[in-house]
Amino acid sequence: MNKIKNDLILRAAKGLKVERTPIWLMRQAGRILPEYRALREKFPDFKTYIKTPEAVVEATLQPIKALGVDAAIIFSDILVIPEAMGLNYEMVEKKGPYFPKKIETLADIEKLKIANPEETLSYVTKAISLTKNEINYEIPLIGFAGAPWTIFAYMTEGSGSKTFSNARKWLYCNPEYSHILLDKITQSTILYLKAQIKAGADMVQIFDSWAGILPPQQYFEFSLKYITQICDSITEVPITVFAKDAYFARAEMAKLNCQVVGLDWCMDIAESRKLIPNKTLQGNFDPCNLYASKEIIKKEAEKMLNSFGSNRYIANLGHGLYPDIDADKVKYFIEVVQNFNHDFVI
Amino acid sequence: MNKIKNDLILRAAKGLKVERTPIWLMRQAGRILPEYRALREKFPDFKTYIKTPEAVVEATLQPIKALGVDAAIIFSDILVIPEAMGLNYEMVEKKGPYFPKKIETLADIEKLKIANPEETLSYVTKAISLTKNEINYEIPLIGFAGAPWTIFAYMTEGSGSKTFSNARKWLYCNPEYSHILLDKITQSTILYLKAQIKAGADMVQIFDSWAGILPPQQYFEFSLKYITQICDSITEVPITVFAKDAYFARAEMAKLNCQVVGLDWCMDIAESRKLIPNKTLQGNFDPCNLYASKEIIKKEAEKMLNSFGSNRYIANLGHGLYPDIDADKVKYFIEVVQNFNHDFVI
Repeated sequence: MNKIKNDLILRAAKGLKVERTPIWLMRQAGRILPEYRALREKFPDFKTYIKTPEAVVEATLQPIKALGVDAAIIFSDILVIPEAMGLNYEMVEKKGPYFPKKIETLADIEKLKIANPEETLSYVTKAISLTKNEINYEIPLIGFAGAPWTIFAYMTEGSGSKTFSNARKWLYCNPEYSHILLDKITQSTILYLKAQIKAGADMVQIFDSWAGILPPQQYFEFSLKYITQICDSITEVPITVFAKDAYFARAEMAKLNCQVVGLDWCMDIAESRKLIPNKTLQGNFDPCNLYASKEIIKKEAEKMLNSFGSNRYIANLGHGLYPDIDADKVKYFIEVVQNFNHDFVI
Repeated sequence: MNKIKNDLILRAAKGLKVERTPIWLMRQAGRILPEYRALREKFPDFKTYIKTPEAVVEATLQPIKALGVDAAIIFSDILVIPEAMGLNYEMVEKKGPYFPKKIETLADIEKLKIANPEETLSYVTKAISLTKNEINYEIPLIGFAGAPWTIFAYMTEGSGSKTFSNARKWLYCNPEYSHILLDKITQSTILYLKAQIKAGADMVQIFDSWAGILPPQQYFEFSLKYITQICDSITEVPITVFAKDAYFARAEMAKLNCQVVGLDWCMDIAESRKLIPNKTLQGNFDPCNLYASKEIIKKEAEKMLNSFGSNRYIANLGHGLYPDIDADKVKYFIEVVQNFNHDFVI
């Protein structure tokens, strides 16, 4: 097996020695880069684009060249899973996802398949293989999937929402059916992540974007339970769990069979270290901070780096980059992190 | 001065003896009631409606008769403050607020007035006086305003938003101008709340709806600082501060000169009691729980009541009611709370 040249992120994930803090950014590929906007002009439809492996490879590699991050993350969408289970969605420009037929009954759930990634998600695994060839063992490639609760939220709500009150209604009114659907999503997600790993993903991340809208007990029952199943099943590569706004679940997350836990920008770093003492932490720069002057970016980045310390840490944002953030500022932030001297004496 | 017959909420706010747990609900007046929907049909435009005191009185009183809550809250909108400062907004049906000309420069801020409530907000104070007459000292009337940060967020973003990244950009790029605007909003809000109290409000609540999107240090500097000023200025009646999702600010909120702190449904009750030991707590039933069967509503409501205990507690939701919640379930929830026997031996 070939050795990845810059494996800082993998080593940090495993709690091994690193010479400097590694960094990648959520949404590093995408609209902040002019070359991505040019690429996307060839694909007016988002779904056609993510189903074109050659184009996906290009977008995945763009931030490596433009920003110098320490890992690539495959460009895709978390909602490929509902589609692979048989629930179609549309991506409406500037509005977000929309499901023409959302999940409303037990019969709707029963009609869904367990996703067969080799059959219905080969456009992702093919893009991963092609990207791995292009990267040529320079840096690791990260795969990902949505957490079952977040996927469930879109499938039952039918679109994005301020409250996800329809999705949340399911948990109160149909807890048993909710578990049946969550179980199907979980099985699909495990197969999907395993297929990504088989295709070459060196690490995977689970995004629980709507973690923070559930009361703690419901979060444990309807989300963390299934994330636990995924973490228990993925033993091949390190796994990161990012549950946005789920501050109340941090102590429970320390018990997961994962190597890395992501923090959003509201989570206090020292408190999080105390609650999750046994994991590598990832995060948590406020993406809005990148609108500021370079002077302020440097000051705040160094404050963050000092708070996390040099050990068991992967620098990242507290959520994804916003499309109107200046790529030059992003590059500067990455340089500040990569040049920071932590007096590495691990 | 006349004595209010059912003053349970005022006594609970002050930490005095109560015979049972009092309750009111955020958004208790509004679309869950058929009589409200009938009333609103006469006013296709939301702003014309909130500027018609007689109609506002009617909507304010509807939940008293229909639901039997222990307080009324004047029906209005937090965005009357930007308008009273000179920044016009529109309420777009099903989409939310929209500012045709948002705040973009220091010159825009300088053009804004400190609101003169007697001049520009008399439609609210008139509705309060009229409501007080109608209530005839049966229960207290609650007044309210948005927290300066939340008002600032709408004024600089120009509309609702998933990220409020424009508003948050201001804090990073123009902290000094941000403080000038926040100061003007705060001065306006203090005058507005004092006018509401003069008109008859027996208690006031500050809604910081977008508290949870700021990193803690920014929340302290750009939001809690101004809430502190408001609390220090309002000494006439009890004041409640509800900062949704600002779990990280609870210890700091214990230092406010307010009597009541509101909790959302993600905040653990025991932990919140520990962090805010000196205040009455209000909350925190998940509005989505009201979609469930009466059996589950009762079980969960009693769990909440036992967790809060009988002392220094006002029952409420963790956020506002959703429009499609069945009014009959809401009424049932209120009855469960009002009939709960806490073995009141305070």
